[in-house]
Parts: sequence; structure tokens; C-alpha cells
Amino acid sequence: MDIAALEPFILELAAVAAIETVPRFRAGGAAQNKAVTGFDPVTEADRRAEASIRARICAVHPDHGVIGEEYGEDRPDAEFVWVLDPVDGTRAFIAGAPVWTTLIGLMWQGRTVLGLIAQPILGEIYIGGVGLGARLVGRTGVKRITTRVDAALPEAIVASTDPAQFTAHERPAWDRLRAAIRLARFGLDGYAMAQVAAGQIDLVVESGLKPWDACGPRAVIEGAGGWIGHWNGGDAAAGRYLFAGSAALAVAAAEILAG
Amino acid sequence: MDIAALEPFILELAAVAAIETVPRFRAGGAAQNKAVTGFDPVTEADRRAEASIRARICAVHPDHGVIGEEYGEDRPDAEFVWVLDPVDGTRAFIAGAPVWTTLIGLMWQGRTVLGLIAQPILGEIYIGGVGLGARLVGRTGVKRITTRVDAALPEAIVASTDPAQFTAHERPAWDRLRAAIRLARFGLDGYAMAQVAAGQIDLVVESGLKPWDACGPRAVIEGAGGWIGHWNGGDAAAGRYLFAGSAALAVAAAEILAG
Repeated sequence: MDIAALEPFILELAAVAAIETVPRFRAGGAAQNKAVTGFDPVTEADRRAEASIRARICAVHPDHGVIGEEYGEDRPDAEFVWVLDPVDGTRAFIAGAPVWTTLIGLMWQGRTVLGLIAQPILGEIYIGGVGLGARLVGRTGVKRITTRVDAALPEAIVASTDPAQFTAHERPAWDRLRAAIRLARFGLDGYAMAQVAAGQIDLVVESGLKPWDACGPRAVIEGAGGWIGHWNGGDAAAGRYLFAGSAALAVAAAEILAG
Repeated sequence: MDIAALEPFILELAAVAAIETVPRFRAGGAAQNKAVTGFDPVTEADRRAEASIRARICAVHPDHGVIGEEYGEDRPDAEFVWVLDPVDGTRAFIAGAPVWTTLIGLMWQGRTVLGLIAQPILGEIYIGGVGLGARLVGRTGVKRITTRVDAALPEAIVASTDPAQFTAHERPAWDRLRAAIRLARFGLDGYAMAQVAAGQIDLVVESGLKPWDACGPRAVIEGAGGWIGHWNGGDAAAGRYLFAGSAALAVAAAEILAG
């Protein structure tokens, strides 16, 4: 199977999602909130975008499986399985910050082979896969992207969505890491993973990630030359992920996190 | 003096700054960092943008004063004084997240009368002033904006740049507030203040703010119907600011922060 041949289709899925997400962004402002009690544009955007993506996959590739945040699993044992998070960064979406993303990954025989991170307000799609490289598809053109591979831990720029995500058990590990790096940045969710692929951020540390949070970003970062793993020695159950510009940086970070 | 007559000029200042900031955003990626040791695009963007703004003010309004983050004070006792932060959100700029902003405020006889928050990658300028209202000048048009005035504290969306900014003395106050609100969001700096004006975020809590961090946002939020004050009962010395969609919300938050 030629994975690269599926690139136009995954870009089409991002476009299908944007039709549902973009008009609902900032639609929950003062006027609407007063008019309709309980109006929830982000949930609506999430559900409708996932439904649209699933319908498109079903129409074009009816033999493919789908795993999504909103509507669960269809044919998860298929040879090809799409893994979806139509709105990653729900809090950013609600707060009016255009750093939420649509995450789409494709697994072949259980391995992630293609994926994208799309931010349609900015008109940015980060796309990649192992052996395919990675690119930023923007409004003004397409650009090849690679991770920054020469950053040592003391110079590293590290992102995490919210320090409050860490359990009492995990928190000292994060505090040790923060003390060892150059700059920490919060609030970016999957958009931070796109910036790892683009060489702007060196490391993303998260806990409690679900498969749909990681699949698309994994493809883009691996395509860009980066490394994805777990920060407690391989136990994926707690969703403790490291996304790094290089394996060397991931190892250095994992050692600090282990204490 | 007709303050509204200065609106085209302040928009021109934002454009002058963007010429210096936009090309340097994401210019510090892998390739450039390898080529030039110590290359620092954000500092360069900061300095050049402020120099350009100052030159334009000096050319058009030589009697006006200027206070800026990078180059200090010129004629701070003038009737009109411009207060500048050419790149607010340095960490966002470095991390490749387009939520850094250019902040420009205008004071007349010591009072903030006009200001803007500009994000040139997104093509957004939030502009306003007391008695002038507030607007979002975007790529597709101009839209009047107002704060969300009906959010009570338990439903409030609250932003703060980084919980690590709070001192050991301040931290319990933040923890109390976070426990009392709906949703907290980090990492947005001045862009969060723009979202208060636009009715997306209800409250911004910061510590250690400088005059140039607050002047432009004050004008926009007050123009949009919001409220700016201090969270420890009026002591501005520590830079402990509250930016709120309504005075009622600010009072409720200040009570929680006071313990």
C-alpha cells in the first residue's frame, strides 16, 4: 500500500472538519450565551466534525476502521484505522484562542503511518509520516519542516498544557524538569506538538493523553525527525507522553522525570 | 482634542511594528539556530519594532511623549504619552505560537484614552477606548466587540499567563480563585486581554505587570465595557492586575483572592 497516495484524502478530511469547526469558533460569545441557555459550540463542533469525517471515510474507504473521541470505535481491527480528535484543545476553543487543532492519524496494521495537525483559523496543516517527511501546508505555500535536533536540555523550550494536569505523584517530576530547562510554555495542547515538528518547541510533556491525542501528532513529529515515547519507562497506561525533537533530548528528559 | 481622530495613527503604528515582528517570527528555527550562535529573533523584533514606532511618533507628533519596554521614557510628562510593548508574550513568540501581541496605549493627562492589542499573524487588531467603544479589525472586516457581562464566578473562564509567576505569598490566592471558577487557561499574555474585550474570556489575573503590559489592553477592555483594577485592594506596586468583563465579576474575584 502506498501511504503517500492517501495524503490528498487526509487533507480532505481536515477540510471536512474545518467546515464544522470554524463557524462555531467564537460563536459562544456574549450574544449567543444570553440567547440560548447551555449553548455549547465546542461540543457541537466536536461532534459534527467527527461525524463528517466518519461519513467521508465510510464513503471512500468503507473497509477502513475509525477510532474517535466522540463516537468510539468502528472496525478497530481493520488493516487501516483512522484515529480522530476533531477539536483538540477544547479550553483554547472556548477561550477564543486559535491554538486548538484537528488531529487525524492513520494506523496500518497497528502502526501509525500518516497524520496531521490542522489549525484552520491560522490556515495551517502540519502533515507527515515515517518515511514521508513532514510539511507545513499554509495559506502561502508548502514548506518542509524538521525538528530542532541540537537543543540540549538546559536550552530546551518545553510545553505542557497545564501543570494542574499532573497528579500529586507526577508533579515533583514536572517541577524537576521545569527547573532543568530554559523556558516552559502552557496552554497549547496539540499545537505544541506541531511546533515540535516545526523546530520551534523542543519537548512536550503531557499526562493522561488518549490515543486520539497522540496518533496524528506522532506521525507528524516522526516524519519531521522527532521522537515520541513515554516518560515513565514505557508504561502507556497513564498516557504519560514525551514528544521530543530528538531521541537524545527525550532520554535526557526521561532521566530528569524519573528522578 | 478629538481622540477618535488618532485612531488611524495608532493603527499605522501597529502596521509599522508588524513590518519588524512578522518576518522574525519562527525565524529562529533549526536552520538559523545552527548557523548563528546566540541568534535571538524575539529581542531583535522587540527592539526594531519599538524603534520604528518611536520614529513614526517623533515624525508625526514630536510633542508627544513615549514610554516603552525596550528604550525607556521620552517626555513622560507630555500631554499625550504613548505606552508601548512591541512584543508582549515573548515566550509565545519563541515557542512559535501566534498569540504574542503588540500593545500600544495612549495616555492623555495621565489617563488611558486609546489603545490596541494587535496579532499580525492572525491579522487581528483589537482597538478601543473609553467612550469610543471597541472593535476587532480583522482580515475580513471590522466588528464591534463587547465584554461578556453576565458571567458569574462559577461559570467564569479565567486566564493567567503562568501559575509559576505567582510568589509564595500570592499562590494560595490563585489556587482559591482557580477552585472557584469554571475553566482556567494559561499561556496567552495580552492575547487573553483581547479575548476579555471580545467576550470570550471573563477574567485575566496577572502579577508583576509593567505599565506597558496594561495600558493598551486597559483602553480596549474599558472601551468594550469591561473593568481593570488591582487584586490586592488597589496597590499597583506589585503589578497585580485584574482584567474583567464586568465590575461585578472583578469584585467577586477580588474577594476570593483576598481570602
